Formats: sequence, C-alpha cells, structure tokens
Amino acid sequence: MEIVSQNRAHGGKQLVVAHESSATGTGMTFSIFLPLQADGGARLPVVWYLSGLTCTHANVTDKGEYRAACAELGLIFVAPDTSPRGEDVADADEWDFGKGAGFYVDATQDPWAKHYRMWTYVTEELPALVAAEFPVDMDRQSITGHSMGGHGALTVALNHPQRFRSVSAFAPIVAPGQVPWGQKALGGYLGEDRAVWRKHDAVALIEDGARVPEVLVDVGTADPFIEKELRPELLERSCEEAGIALTLRRRAGYDHSYYFISTFMADHLRWHAERLRRD
Amino acid sequence: MEIVSQNRAHGGKQLVVAHESSATGTGMTFSIFLPLQADGGARLPVVWYLSGLTCTHANVTDKGEYRAACAELGLIFVAPDTSPRGEDVADADEWDFGKGAGFYVDATQDPWAKHYRMWTYVTEELPALVAAEFPVDMDRQSITGHSMGGHGALTVALNHPQRFRSVSAFAPIVAPGQVPWGQKALGGYLGEDRAVWRKHDAVALIEDGARVPEVLVDVGTADPFIEKELRPELLERSCEEAGIALTLRRRAGYDHSYYFISTFMADHLRWHAERLRRD
Repeated sequence: MEIVSQNRAHGGKQLVVAHESSATGTGMTFSIFLPLQADGGARLPVVWYLSGLTCTHANVTDKGEYRAACAELGLIFVAPDTSPRGEDVADADEWDFGKGAGFYVDATQDPWAKHYRMWTYVTEELPALVAAEFPVDMDRQSITGHSMGGHGALTVALNHPQRFRSVSAFAPIVAPGQVPWGQKALGGYLGEDRAVWRKHDAVALIEDGARVPEVLVDVGTADPFIEKELRPELLERSCEEAGIALTLRRRAGYDHSYYFISTFMADHLRWHAERLRRD
Repeated sequence: MEIVSQNRAHGGKQLVVAHESSATGTGMTFSIFLPLQADGGARLPVVWYLSGLTCTHANVTDKGEYRAACAELGLIFVAPDTSPRGEDVADADEWDFGKGAGFYVDATQDPWAKHYRMWTYVTEELPALVAAEFPVDMDRQSITGHSMGGHGALTVALNHPQRFRSVSAFAPIVAPGQVPWGQKALGGYLGEDRAVWRKHDAVALIEDGARVPEVLVDVGTADPFIEKELRPELLERSCEEAGIALTLRRRAGYDHSYYFISTFMADHLRWHAERLRRD
C-alpha cells in the first residue's frame, strides 16, 4: 500500500492510496477520507461510494462535496476506481465498456476475465485492505454510488444484506438486464446466459427474493439517461411488490452530473449516519 | 455572451459563460452561480473569486465547495479565468508566467501588452457585463481569491475601497514586489520600474495609504509557498501599522490546495454575507 497523496481537509485527512490488487492483477487506486474523529483511536463507521461510467476515484474526491458532512458526522468515506487500469488491461473504444466501466462484476468472458474482477475487488479485497489499514468499524458500513456505481451499490447491498446498515444511490442503473448500457456490459463481461446476470441486476435480485429493509434514491428529472438507462420506475415497482421501503425522490431540473450528486450528498450521508448510529 | 453550460445545483444554477472581451481582445470564460433566490427577481449580493496560478474558472467551480453556502446565504458567486487564452496569445514555458498566470495586471511590456489586460477585465469589463446580464446588486459586492487570486482580491479591493463591502483571501501573495513569483510577473508584465508595481502590491498599497477597514486571511501552516511566496507576516505588519483590522488565521496542517480552500470557503462566505447584509 502506498499513500499517493495526503491532504488536510475539513479537519481530517483526504488520502489517495495505491496498491497491488490480487483480484484484478493490476495496480488499483482508491481515495479515503478520515475525519478528525479517526485520530482519537476509535473505529468509525464507513460509507463506500461506487462511481459511475468513465470515473476514477478522483471525480467524487474532487467534486462530491462529501468531506464537510463526513467531518461533521464522523464518517470514513471510501471511493474505489471503476475498473482495472494499465496498458496490458483489455479495453474497448467505447466509454461505456472496458476501462472506466467495470460494472462491478467478475468477468467470465475473454479478454475481460483476466483483469475485470471488480466484484471481488469491491466486496472482498478492498474491504479487507481498508479494515486492516484504517480505523473502520466493519460492523457499521453503508454503501452508495452514482449511475453505474448506483447499480453497484444496490447489487452489492442486495447480495450482502447483513453487511450494510443502509444503501442509497444517485441516479442508479436499477435493471441493467433491461437497458442498453447494462445489456452491453453484462453480455460482454458475463456472456449471453442471462440467468447469470441476475446477481448483478437490482430489480432481478429483488424478484428473486433478495431483500434490504429500505433504499434511498435521488434522480434528476432532467437526467438525460432517466428513460432509457436508469428507469427508476422499475425499482419502484419491484420494491413495492417486495415490501422494500424505497424513498425515491425525483429532483426537479437536476441532471446526471456531479452538480446533482454534490447537491444531495450531505443529505444521503445524514441518512446513512442515522442508521449507522443505531445499536 | 454564450451560455456554455447550465446545471441545476444546490437549488440554483451553475453557469459557465463565454464572451468576447474587449479588454483582452480574446474570448474569455467565467462561471457564475445563481442561487434559487435569484429566480425571485430581486438583485442579490455578489462575491467575486479570483483564482490562483494555472487555474481557469473550472478549478473553483469543481472543487471550491461554495454552492451550498451561497445557496443558503443568497449569494451570487463569479469566478473569472486567470489570463487571456488562445493560440495567438503570447505564452511562456513556465507555469508561473504567461497563460494561467495573468496576475490581474494590465501588461505594458511586449509581447504581453496586447492581450494581458486582466486588471481592466476584472475591474471594469466583467463587472459591467455581469451587472447587465445577471441580477446582481452592485451596491453589495465582496471579493476573495486564492494565492495569485488572493493578491488580485487584495489589490482590487485596496484600489476600490468604496466598491467592496469586504475582502478576504486564501493563502494570498501579499507583497509580490518582494517575492520571486511576483517579481517575475510584475517585472515581466510591467517592466523594471518598480514604482508602477506598487498599485499591484497589497503591502505597498497599504504603505502608500490605501485602506480597507478589515481583511480576513486564511493560510495553511503546511503550505509549501508560505515562507518564500506568500509571506503573510508582511501583511500582518503593514495592517498593524496602518490600523487595518486583519484577521489572519494560520491553519495547522493545511496546504495550498483546494482541500484547504474548500475547508474554509463556507466560513469566508458567511463572513462576507454578514457584511453584505448590513445597510
């Protein structure tokens, strides 16, 4: 593990960390914010943030406006990358597949299977590394994400209902099996057998019986991807049928950008913090 | 004037605006945040933010974390570029001179004199444009900035004591005539007659009798430029001698980055808002 940068921010420390990943077989980089409370020796609750298409750890670290709320609430905030990186990592010419677009799955199809193992990375390797190296209370974890990362947050939480106290998402892809981005990615990484896609599709997981008690989602009404790619109404329907308490807020005039995310970031963090404080 | 982008953010609108500048003879780009209160038809107070070396309008727009506070306080926030831009604009190979390093002066030396007229741009042309096109209350203006832009904020305010209700700065260059960055820039743009530099040197301006009632400055103790380039003790001494109420806060462990600026941005905006609210 190598500390790439460390900056005092909002009373705490914003770190960028590089390490060799056994999951992806590449170097990986993530950011972690440690609020001042981390200096006291106590273990703190952690919020995982999974980013969207084309992003690295840097987008939310620069533009997410999470540090003030994390400082106030005593939350550690971790933001991984969205795919393996490196010259020997297979890539596509498109921005919605390949590097920057790992979709938080373990690819089974060549040439992707060699390095695109983001499921193992974000659900096993990175949590173990963070738990070993930083003062996180692994009994108090929440998860959120944006767009492709909202898909990641929902599917990781639905597959690990005991691990997370709460799950939220900003403009998530909720049913990748039913939308172009998701069909391209899941087909490309996992192959054409759609049965294996269902573990990585929030709506399908809920149809198949996966449960979390509640979900918070914000999405902008001016989001250009809402109708074709995000389709929040599909999550609404499946949560209603499953008895999952979904709070879905359609935010008038907001788009898909970090201007939208940063506007509601503190609100999501407060919502998570309430749940992370409960015994 | 062309609206390059417009995004809903924190209840208001973040705009990026391009226009042809008669001051610089080039296209110029700035950002302006209009809080929700601007929709009501009332004219709102405005805070000008001048950026540091290498920056455009985008750095603070992405990383400054000013929108939440401006939304709460009802402030318009304007961030201009730091130099003229374009292929026919003279440049230097260094990052501390030429493009991205206009130092908020009107250059008199060739080849800079043709386009590097940032003083006229930020003190005359841009205010007139913003006043004509946006609902700003020009009787309620404050100014702030970072590093080279802190120098800009201080020198603009000291030269226009009636225009601004308040002036603050993050890690400003306070005495360019006495430090390497400033000597290089003022010598390059204005020539070797140091008498003409004094209008663009906060400490020299105060020595020469310029006055504002008070100044707020934050600077990080881990700022790598504090001893050679920023030298806040020079401002401290000149304010003390002149009877200017300087609040200089040395922030333990903070560096020169936007992690530092964003940490104290809301605090500066609250300080300005208090002064902008007074009748």
